[in-house]
Amino acid sequence: MAASDDYVVGVDMGGTKILAAVIDGKGEIVQQAKTATKPKKGPDGVIKRIERCIREAIDGAELETSQIRAIGIGSPGPLDPETGVIIFAPNLGWSNVPLKAKLETIFGIPTCVDNDVNVGTLGEYAFGAGQGVKNLVGIFVGTGIGGGIILDGKLFHGINKTAGEIGHMIVDANGPRCGCGNFGCLEAVASRTAITKELQKAILKKGQKSKLLKLNGGKLDQIRSQAIAKAVKRGDKPTVKVMQRAGKYLGISVASIVHFLNPEMIVFGGGVIEAMRDSLLDPIRQAAAEYALPTTMDGVQIVKAALGDNAGVIGASVLARQRLS
Amino acid sequence: MAASDDYVVGVDMGGTKILAAVIDGKGEIVQQAKTATKPKKGPDGVIKRIERCIREAIDGAELETSQIRAIGIGSPGPLDPETGVIIFAPNLGWSNVPLKAKLETIFGIPTCVDNDVNVGTLGEYAFGAGQGVKNLVGIFVGTGIGGGIILDGKLFHGINKTAGEIGHMIVDANGPRCGCGNFGCLEAVASRTAITKELQKAILKKGQKSKLLKLNGGKLDQIRSQAIAKAVKRGDKPTVKVMQRAGKYLGISVASIVHFLNPEMIVFGGGVIEAMRDSLLDPIRQAAAEYALPTTMDGVQIVKAALGDNAGVIGASVLARQRLS
Repeated sequence: MAASDDYVVGVDMGGTKILAAVIDGKGEIVQQAKTATKPKKGPDGVIKRIERCIREAIDGAELETSQIRAIGIGSPGPLDPETGVIIFAPNLGWSNVPLKAKLETIFGIPTCVDNDVNVGTLGEYAFGAGQGVKNLVGIFVGTGIGGGIILDGKLFHGINKTAGEIGHMIVDANGPRCGCGNFGCLEAVASRTAITKELQKAILKKGQKSKLLKLNGGKLDQIRSQAIAKAVKRGDKPTVKVMQRAGKYLGISVASIVHFLNPEMIVFGGGVIEAMRDSLLDPIRQAAAEYALPTTMDGVQIVKAALGDNAGVIGASVLARQRLS
Repeated sequence: MAASDDYVVGVDMGGTKILAAVIDGKGEIVQQAKTATKPKKGPDGVIKRIERCIREAIDGAELETSQIRAIGIGSPGPLDPETGVIIFAPNLGWSNVPLKAKLETIFGIPTCVDNDVNVGTLGEYAFGAGQGVKNLVGIFVGTGIGGGIILDGKLFHGINKTAGEIGHMIVDANGPRCGCGNFGCLEAVASRTAITKELQKAILKKGQKSKLLKLNGGKLDQIRSQAIAKAVKRGDKPTVKVMQRAGKYLGISVASIVHFLNPEMIVFGGGVIEAMRDSLLDPIRQAAAEYALPTTMDGVQIVKAALGDNAGVIGASVLARQRLS
């Protein structure tokens, strides 16, 4: 067990903001800093912003850079967790950026990089909902659907480092087209993008009466998770129906994962889950139980992520520690 | 590496026949014996038959029981690989049979039991198509569809010991009903049972002209894999169409597994695959490539099982050795 004065830095890099935190050996955030990503500035510009954000967190914690043992970063991907090269990140406009190498040159501190959802899953395993669980799967439902797999306490990457692409498991081979070009991926039926399309169809095309339009500021071109959650809470029929459908598909995917890998726990996180909580998790649990073969689901926990917005920085700090040890 | 005079016994127990083999440290079958299972004789009667079959193999190898280090058995399941209790085996009429304990009492040799498809996958990993591969998935297509997962060279069982239930991963949530009661399981669209239903519908109900009826002895109540393979070879339209569909669904499942776990290899075995070979594997490979996200399939091998009917006894011997070490 790491001591409380054993510091690492965890960085959560997204398309809009960068979070950096100094984290002690107990997984506690000592100091945090935040800045806008500004992807338009290009890779070197963004890396400068990451540098500044990290320095601000270290400074705020009243520490010196020399007291930081390692830096971990959760980044959009695909990326290579061994070389630390971001292969492709469409929302950053990056391709083949050697993030690890660049930061190691700047700070002289061992740095490691992994996929943002992998890192989020790792955070939940070490300090969140999955504490004490050896094998778990994380599923993050937002604009898209991503996931991570922890086996025997470590992230499992697979041969091409792409394991955990849960959003592109096919649940409905004759279902709607996915952004990836195929049909019936989980992401095509249960992400916020898919939910938005279904709600637009029900409310705008079919003209079903709904409170959602008002709750979402009179427009439905982009629908916020919070607006969906409020509409469901108020019993808004079209929204309830669409979310039941999304929950059913997510539950079916849980059953498939339980049949295939039979993990001890499935942790759900991401914007849609954070906003909806049990009003989405309950239909997920119900569909999973309905589709699972007898005994396969016994004791399998389906839970909400516990770390919220901090999963990224905490997970990144765990990544840094695991690679060091 | 085990020496060639380091003997174990592998047993493949099915609903109709029992195979027992003495296997040396190089995975070579020294001597084999075979007998009918006769499930009507009840658990103790069948266990007597297993005993006799094992003694015959040892005797034929001109060895003494004392020279056998361990016994491994692949059995229909569900079962508990730790206690060696067969929880439920419908085609044997067994429930809660302590197979491991009973055989250990008879022979005084350490005995271990696992699921037949798990054992088959393990055999392919150690001495078949998967040699040198650390992470692989086995899929066996016959009357039903079963599978096994090897991670880091060991069978992965999961929390309820049910990992590898690939036949009940859901690929088509709005598809046909499965024997398990749910809809759109892989087994409901791509097992020989599902293929048979589709062929009956096309040929008997819709009256499509087909060579299959003659090739299968004038009836279609049960269709042999060999008859299907012959019909496809002769370009029989209804059979080709049905098998293309089955191959597509199997390929979609491969893509889901590749997205989720990203293993190095997927080994296909079982009666349908053994009969059809590349005429089914090619459509599987094609659909998998079509549905897989860029880079996820790079270097992932989709291959036919290499051990054929011997996968069971060889896999059981590997199981015995792994548990001993």
